[in-house]
Amino acid sequence: MKGLVYVYTGDGKGKTTAAIGSAIRAMGHGKRAVIIQFLKKGEYGEKKFQPLEIYQFGREQFVMEPTDRDYELAEEALEFALHVLEEKPFLLVLDEVNVAASMGLISTDDVVDIVEKRGNTNIILTGRNAPAEFIELADLVTEMKKVKHPFDTGERAREGLEY
Amino acid sequence: MKGLVYVYTGDGKGKTTAAIGSAIRAMGHGKRAVIIQFLKKGEYGEKKFQPLEIYQFGREQFVMEPTDRDYELAEEALEFALHVLEEKPFLLVLDEVNVAASMGLISTDDVVDIVEKRGNTNIILTGRNAPAEFIELADLVTEMKKVKHPFDTGERAREGLEY
Repeated sequence: MKGLVYVYTGDGKGKTTAAIGSAIRAMGHGKRAVIIQFLKKGEYGEKKFQPLEIYQFGREQFVMEPTDRDYELAEEALEFALHVLEEKPFLLVLDEVNVAASMGLISTDDVVDIVEKRGNTNIILTGRNAPAEFIELADLVTEMKKVKHPFDTGERAREGLEY
Repeated sequence: MKGLVYVYTGDGKGKTTAAIGSAIRAMGHGKRAVIIQFLKKGEYGEKKFQPLEIYQFGREQFVMEPTDRDYELAEEALEFALHVLEEKPFLLVLDEVNVAASMGLISTDDVVDIVEKRGNTNIILTGRNAPAEFIELADLVTEMKKVKHPFDTGERAREGLEY
């Protein structure tokens, strides 16, 4: 059965956590889920949670102006995704890939190419500003829309909730 | 530090999975997360995933017209939530509580009361049709907005993805 393609986008909280929750749901049924994170590196709770298979291709700093290293890392993430697909996991999450593509760190065509090679693997693409090509090819798209966010009132990120 | 209150609502996919992902993130930092599910009972992937602490208060059938048993179960879930709060977990998820409240199975006041007794526990309320009182008291609200959904084109729910 051909894998489905989900896109989680929008400016609200819940995109990455929904992808993690999907991975857990799949794992609960004994299926393999692999998470590849673009633009992120660090001890997020999900990274420290042993049963999850997470690979990070980012730097610890938030990317404002991309450096050569950021382009390299994003390319490495794509190559790694192709390699993982050959192992035919049930679910492959490309976390923040929408941001990497919308920033021009990777080409949308390369991501579309990976999605088209998915076979039976289900794919989740997360991050703000999902390119129109991703929306187009997706079976399911949810926009996580910010209605209220504590950062707006000066609240700082908390361990275990925001990272 | 007083716990934060999150509401995940809207008609799109990703509300429950975002709450599960949040629980995993917290657990990755060694913190306790408890998930109480209203209106649900069954072998969802997250329920079968051993490390997660999930308690279900529902029947296997989808509730269209609530029966006396549905009211009882929803009340039991609320009582159990109060009991769990006394143990001061880092995170308490009340999954589908918005639906239970909007259907009138429980009173919004009783949920508000639980939220007000949270102390340092962070609370996530999920489900469509979140009552205005919940939106009001929340620190963070994300509307999961359906842009595209495979059920619209006749696709059926798949194990590991939808349950």
